[in-house]
Amino acid sequence: MPAYVSVVTFRVRYSETDQMGTFYNSRVLEWFECGRTEYLREIGLPYSAIEQRGLGLPLVEAKVKYLGRAAYDDLLRMRCSGCLSGRARVRFDLEIEHNDGRAVASGCTIHAITNRHGKAVRPPLWLKEVIDRVQES
Amino acid sequence: MPAYVSVVTFRVRYSETDQMGTFYNSRVLEWFECGRTEYLREIGLPYSAIEQRGLGLPLVEAKVKYLGRAAYDDLLRMRCSGCLSGRARVRFDLEIEHNDGRAVASGCTIHAITNRHGKAVRPPLWLKEVIDRVQES
Amino acid sequence: MPAYVSVVTFRVRYSETDQMGTFYNSRVLEWFECGRTEYLREIGLPYSAIEQRGLGLPLVEAKVKYLGRAAYDDLLRMRCSGCLSGRARVRFDLEIEHNDGRAVASGCTIHAITNRHGKAVRPPLWLKEVIDRVQES
Amino acid sequence: MPAYVSVVTFRVRYSETDQMGTFYNSRVLEWFECGRTEYLREIGLPYSAIEQRGLGLPLVEAKVKYLGRAAYDDLLRMRCSGCLSGRARVRFDLEIEHNDGRAVASGCTIHAITNRHGKAVRPPLWLKEVIDRVQES
Repeated sequence: MPAYVSVVTFRVRYSETDQMGTFYNSRVLEWFECGRTEYLREIGLPYSAIEQRGLGLPLVEAKVKYLGRAAYDDLLRMRCSGCLSGRARVRFDLEIEHNDGRAVASGCTIHAITNRHGKAVRPPLWLKEVIDRVQES
Repeated sequence: MPAYVSVVTFRVRYSETDQMGTFYNSRVLEWFECGRTEYLREIGLPYSAIEQRGLGLPLVEAKVKYLGRAAYDDLLRMRCSGCLSGRARVRFDLEIEHNDGRAVASGCTIHAITNRHGKAVRPPLWLKEVIDRVQES
Repeated sequence: MPAYVSVVTFRVRYSETDQMGTFYNSRVLEWFECGRTEYLREIGLPYSAIEQRGLGLPLVEAKVKYLGRAAYDDLLRMRCSGCLSGRARVRFDLEIEHNDGRAVASGCTIHAITNRHGKAVRPPLWLKEVIDRVQES
Repeated sequence: MPAYVSVVTFRVRYSETDQMGTFYNSRVLEWFECGRTEYLREIGLPYSAIEQRGLGLPLVEAKVKYLGRAAYDDLLRMRCSGCLSGRARVRFDLEIEHNDGRAVASGCTIHAITNRHGKAVRPPLWLKEVIDRVQES
């Protein structure tokens, strides 16, 4: 069964354009962060709550494919899904497209799980249970 | 006698341009931060050392005048000087121009002085002494 | 009678925080841009349409007061109103606050009106009429 | 024989930190742009000159590995080398580390070659010759 997928819509900000007239490439990683934030909120694990419990999800790897242009004020839609990966990683897969379906970017981000001291740890049970549950929904 | 003035040169990054083909307006505040960082380093008070001593200099007011365009990869020069302002404020004045003297932006930033708990405090003596000294140099 | 005021709500992005744990100061100018974008859309003059008609509204001056902290994922509300200023300027006044009314930042941005060649011009009649009309609404 | 490698040093800006106290993840893509800019300048093909000749090098793919933290004002060193990839791609490999050699990030960016109309084209001879020449240096 397919995993849970969150969807957010947003507009390209003027500050996110560059002199080519499309969004600057690094903005996709900032948008991916917004996608993860909404995904985690929707599955009941807001990232600010994760941080308050003493965990962090620092990025260890990111891959982005740039598939099409998007201009200032264009309305874009971003889909995000997450899963555990390996023994101690969380992985998010993300896709951004125009409202009419034209692809803009896709990619994934892979995160370590760290404790208050920044040390990598195994996913605690409460995190594992929520993420496993939404995989089967 | 004129106050100490620091000078830094830097290039406009591609990520700092927008679709008008000049730098995006908010970048000036990021550049001003670079100007303050170098000014404080040069007068012997690196900002990271100020933070390690438990003080912060959060911005309370910023004013910017946009005076001219600057394109990707243009080499710009920024001048910065600082002083105490009122009883408990630090003020920096900044100017950015092209190498040939054409003006790009000018402005000032005004900062509170805060302790470890984020509470506004009067400037400690060690901060006051350094800033007063460079006023007379 | 009071001028038209647009309202947008948005969340602080993780990428907009800095190591003080609040939003980085230059982000306010990016948020102000979002406020202007929505204001202009709501009064029937989307900025992308203004650009397509060959006009630009480059920033010539910005002032920001920083009034309070805002953390990652905080929900903020921004009010924006605009007016003609002097003979050939457009001015926007903006305020950002928390949902509970605690102030975050306020300020104004002043813009020249430029033609396709980047030359400053007087406001064309169609622009003047729309902005005047919403002043009286 | 190894390809030409450019080296740039730079400091982490305050605006590039986030509330984890290290640089925000998307900044690496902005730094990579600075690395490419210096690489192209050093091999005699400044990117602004490439754009003036009507070519663009839009990003089609980016991969980043995050290998270590870097704090505000830390002095970092970035190495960059470039090559042609496939029939119509340019690829840059980049590494960022602390002055003492501790790794910060590494990755690659893959670029299409586009003409004035944004259409993908084969690398023109003048581009091919320069990039091939520095491979053998």
